[in-house]
Amino acid sequence: MARASRKQSIPVWAAEAGPHAEFVVSTRVRLARNFEGYPFAHLLSDEQRDQIWKRLLESLGQSEDFSTCQFSPLAKLPRRERLKLVEEHMLSPHMERPAPGAGMILSPEKDLAIMINEEDHLRIQIILPGLQLERGWERAEALDCRLEEVAAFAFHNDLGYLTACPTNLGTGMRASVMLHLPGLILNGQMGNLIGVLYGNDVMVRGFYGEGTRVHGNIFQLSNQKTLGRSESAILDELHKVTLQVIEKERTARKVLMAENRVSLENDVRRSLGIILYASAVSFEEALELLSMVRLGSEVGILGAEVRDFNLALTALGDAHLQRVARGETPEGEIDRRRADLLRTFVEER
Amino acid sequence: MARASRKQSIPVWAAEAGPHAEFVVSTRVRLARNFEGYPFAHLLSDEQRDQIWKRLLESLGQSEDFSTCQFSPLAKLPRRERLKLVEEHMLSPHMERPAPGAGMILSPEKDLAIMINEEDHLRIQIILPGLQLERGWERAEALDCRLEEVAAFAFHNDLGYLTACPTNLGTGMRASVMLHLPGLILNGQMGNLIGVLYGNDVMVRGFYGEGTRVHGNIFQLSNQKTLGRSESAILDELHKVTLQVIEKERTARKVLMAENRVSLENDVRRSLGIILYASAVSFEEALELLSMVRLGSEVGILGAEVRDFNLALTALGDAHLQRVARGETPEGEIDRRRADLLRTFVEER
Repeated sequence: MARASRKQSIPVWAAEAGPHAEFVVSTRVRLARNFEGYPFAHLLSDEQRDQIWKRLLESLGQSEDFSTCQFSPLAKLPRRERLKLVEEHMLSPHMERPAPGAGMILSPEKDLAIMINEEDHLRIQIILPGLQLERGWERAEALDCRLEEVAAFAFHNDLGYLTACPTNLGTGMRASVMLHLPGLILNGQMGNLIGVLYGNDVMVRGFYGEGTRVHGNIFQLSNQKTLGRSESAILDELHKVTLQVIEKERTARKVLMAENRVSLENDVRRSLGIILYASAVSFEEALELLSMVRLGSEVGILGAEVRDFNLALTALGDAHLQRVARGETPEGEIDRRRADLLRTFVEER
Repeated sequence: MARASRKQSIPVWAAEAGPHAEFVVSTRVRLARNFEGYPFAHLLSDEQRDQIWKRLLESLGQSEDFSTCQFSPLAKLPRRERLKLVEEHMLSPHMERPAPGAGMILSPEKDLAIMINEEDHLRIQIILPGLQLERGWERAEALDCRLEEVAAFAFHNDLGYLTACPTNLGTGMRASVMLHLPGLILNGQMGNLIGVLYGNDVMVRGFYGEGTRVHGNIFQLSNQKTLGRSESAILDELHKVTLQVIEKERTARKVLMAENRVSLENDVRRSLGIILYASAVSFEEALELLSMVRLGSEVGILGAEVRDFNLALTALGDAHLQRVARGETPEGEIDRRRADLLRTFVEER
């Protein structure tokens, strides 16, 4: 068992390109689980939280399956490390200030991330590059079985898995894909599409999930319902909808090129100019600029391309740009470092 | 006498750098004059306008003094040529649609421009690069004497020269300087300064004079009063005020560098990036961008400089970018040509 170390690796979803990488940044399959015989997490005493954490540590910490994983009590991680995990989409933004007993089990590739004592006792997560819902589910299911060996999960024969929030009841599964959809945004179709998807039980959310804003034209699609359908039916439907959205994005790009090529080229080239020359850039703007240059490159109107778009999404975050774990960086310094790093993600051909 | 030709030369104010060129684009001395025995221009019949134009043509057209000048009946100039003259600040914007009998006498260097049958029978203008109020006045005065040989001017012993609008009564002189003042704008001091100058009988106007907007942080300062003071007293005062404004601009730049260097550098570098990469730019934006890059270069925070700033002010105008005298250019094409030309005004060191 590896202890939490300052040296963090790059998540595999950010480091590698997966299936449909042109449109799909990453896939996540998340299962909410709770142990029998304990109240839900928000009603746990500090002692009970500690019991759950210790029980997992004892049971899994010695196991061969988790031998390369980090077991981190979140409160003991330096704040910057927690913020980096949020920027890498390993932690929910609200877990940045962890409750006592909140912890995390993380694989070195960061494709496996189990949050402990969050909203539920366990949040089992598999995060992969590109569109890999089936693979994500297989791995999450295997992990689910392995964790049930620790202690029995709260389960109801009619309802399925019991969860702290009723929106997770049943399968306890939230599957999601992160999509880069600049064409649909520029064409003004995204608003409509969100409504249509909602009617098809698919939720559209921002860059950091629930209640967060859209950055860099990146949207998270996820299943709305967790109850009354099997996991594979939910995943099949989300996979199908994702492919449809990709088709709509392809069409939107073709329409843009046919009807607004000149103004698109202008926007794209300006974005490139700002990336190459700005001396300070905010995170939000950096993602918008990269998104535009990436689009320009993908539709073939720009002699430049974005290298490692997925990596940029995490590496350009504030916490990733802090050089010292403790103490504040001078105001504006982060934006300047970001501008310097941002340039390296663009390559003129 | 040279007839109006399609081939237009570059005005000397745009082609050359004059005294205080870092701050002063150009100087203009304009005298409003009317011939005795005629009503003011707005009350003239078409025949009377024609008489005035012909009389000047006969008297000056054969003269050695005007042998290199163009004598142009404005209505006969192609519309694009008139628009180019407006962009070169030779013609008032409202003269773009000339009345019958409206004409222009223009020297090849475009430092001498006499408008005929505009608001007054004669508008004698000398336009020079940089700050040259005294030289401008000397030349305007000489021209004034030469033109009075054609016919006596309407003059009143108490009031001085009589003009169509009472705001020109007396000397009939409006002297003005075009100043590039980005520091005062960025520091937010310009609004206040305009009020102070107004209290000192100096008017501040936009890029094309009366009632026009500011472009590229360029302001026109001119004398408010024409009555009750001698020409030399008015010119001395305007010269003194101009030097004071230049000092204020110098101070504003120093303060910016001391207090906002980082954000200034960011703005300046972004402007450079857009100039180098944009594929379409409006006239207003082009001037804003050049103004910022010029400022950045002058305060020493940019490894790039603006060549021929004055020339850019005219060459980037819509009419200058039209390639065909007749017929419309496709929508957006002018902005694309402007972007291409704009790049050539910037040189990376």
